[in-house]
Amino acid sequence: MDFELGKGYNELTIGETASFSKTITETDICLFAGISGDFNPLHMNEVYAKQTSFKARIAHGALTQGLIAPVLGMKLPGLGTVVVEISCRFKAPTFFNDTITATATVAEKMEEKRRIGMDLKWTNQHGATVAEGKAVVLPPEKGL
Amino acid sequence: MDFELGKGYNELTIGETASFSKTITETDICLFAGISGDFNPLHMNEVYAKQTSFKARIAHGALTQGLIAPVLGMKLPGLGTVVVEISCRFKAPTFFNDTITATATVAEKMEEKRRIGMDLKWTNQHGATVAEGKAVVLPPEKGL
Amino acid sequence: MDFELGKGYNELTIGETASFSKTITETDICLFAGISGDFNPLHMNEVYAKQTSFKARIAHGALTQGLIAPVLGMKLPGLGTVVVEISCRFKAPTFFNDTITATATVAEKMEEKRRIGMDLKWTNQHGATVAEGKAVVLPPEKGL
Amino acid sequence: MDFELGKGYNELTIGETASFSKTITETDICLFAGISGDFNPLHMNEVYAKQTSFKARIAHGALTQGLIAPVLGMKLPGLGTVVVEISCRFKAPTFFNDTITATATVAEKMEEKRRIGMDLKWTNQHGATVAEGKAVVLPPEKGL
Repeated sequence: MDFELGKGYNELTIGETASFSKTITETDICLFAGISGDFNPLHMNEVYAKQTSFKARIAHGALTQGLIAPVLGMKLPGLGTVVVEISCRFKAPTFFNDTITATATVAEKMEEKRRIGMDLKWTNQHGATVAEGKAVVLPPEKGL
Repeated sequence: MDFELGKGYNELTIGETASFSKTITETDICLFAGISGDFNPLHMNEVYAKQTSFKARIAHGALTQGLIAPVLGMKLPGLGTVVVEISCRFKAPTFFNDTITATATVAEKMEEKRRIGMDLKWTNQHGATVAEGKAVVLPPEKGL
Repeated sequence: MDFELGKGYNELTIGETASFSKTITETDICLFAGISGDFNPLHMNEVYAKQTSFKARIAHGALTQGLIAPVLGMKLPGLGTVVVEISCRFKAPTFFNDTITATATVAEKMEEKRRIGMDLKWTNQHGATVAEGKAVVLPPEKGL
Repeated sequence: MDFELGKGYNELTIGETASFSKTITETDICLFAGISGDFNPLHMNEVYAKQTSFKARIAHGALTQGLIAPVLGMKLPGLGTVVVEISCRFKAPTFFNDTITATATVAEKMEEKRRIGMDLKWTNQHGATVAEGKAVVLPPEKGL
């Protein structure tokens, strides 16, 4: 069993990008409620959700946000990356059955601590931006 | 079916706090992998994880972070809250079967947009801080 | 990590009520089949279910009944409550995507053993009663 | 696709018995929390549970009770049975990894409405009775 580490600090170029995309199903939302304890009726109760400005149940924000994890940890920089910090600003709701694409772009190389600043963006199947954010990550150490 | 909204802007006091606590199980991690697509072997592969500095599989950061959602949306400010922005800085790993407490504290009242700044903290059963962060939320509108 | 116990025997008043409400999804039914072993085709087989008088798959009765648990154990009486006995009489089926509200009302204070009799009711989004029942619970001990 | 109905009223004999048995896993409990909304820390929080008289997390009572459903609906009387009423008196906790056997016994034939009274019992791998109860069921109609 061999594991290929992701890109090291010196292998990363500003502007490089990678993404992961997935349809958010009702099942995902039910399961996420169960693992997070977030039973907010906006996610779990159709009658309540219809009375809100959203008019329908929406996905947990943390579920949408979570789709960036496979990008950072498995694609760019990839295996061996440690996420130091992450932020997410929500712009629009994720509805059931929306297909969300989470994209990370190398934005900054922080020489001193050899960390990487990444711009994050989440879009839906209509091309609308549902969230934006930033991450600071420590890419895998791979010698100079 | 009645739903009681959480606290409105005027009802919130700086320093108020609420928390949610839960043991993170292997099941939670398996399910989160399935719904997020994050199959990083650090979470899913015991052989790989043993070779890392963590010496064992650890939970997804987004899973730890997600435990703040039931606090913000169901306790403080509570039902009807919209999370505008959230950030999280990871300090220590969450291991399988750790019991994590996510705590939110009212830190700032942003008069102009009637938003609330919250300080966030995640601790484990040993009292260690595993993550810290901030959120900006829009509490439920409840008239003046 | 602080846990606030629910109401003790002396704090409970006849007529007090609390409820929990949730949409029952296909996911819930699939998962409940998996954890209970109840693979009755009335729940799991669309072809069979269409041939029955229900004309569609219905939820497990125990799943509907289970929505009373967060009420008794987390709201009224709340944390620390022990359910001694529970009964449930089914009146109407729960269909997929029905939103069920489970309500418990303090009905009787049983002085000798300091137990509480609760009336239980489950209604759907149309206001129809899908089940009724009773519970005997031991509220958390909180000194006299 | 043929489905064989269970036993009709006239085919059932007092004293007949059937059972279903299963190990209750941590996964079952995590999933049941997610589908029922019951995040009582007695089930979900190892630190809290250790402080209680149980000294460990225990399964949801409704999960233990639910193991009788495959008996009534799939074995005795079997397919086509409608559960009219069910009651359950809890005697002892179900711990994680306990193997529970749910047993139903034909106890009474209620001629007028052609219903069947069943005695229910739930035991664990040590032979201890964890719960007892009764059900009234309407067996499948199968002509006289």
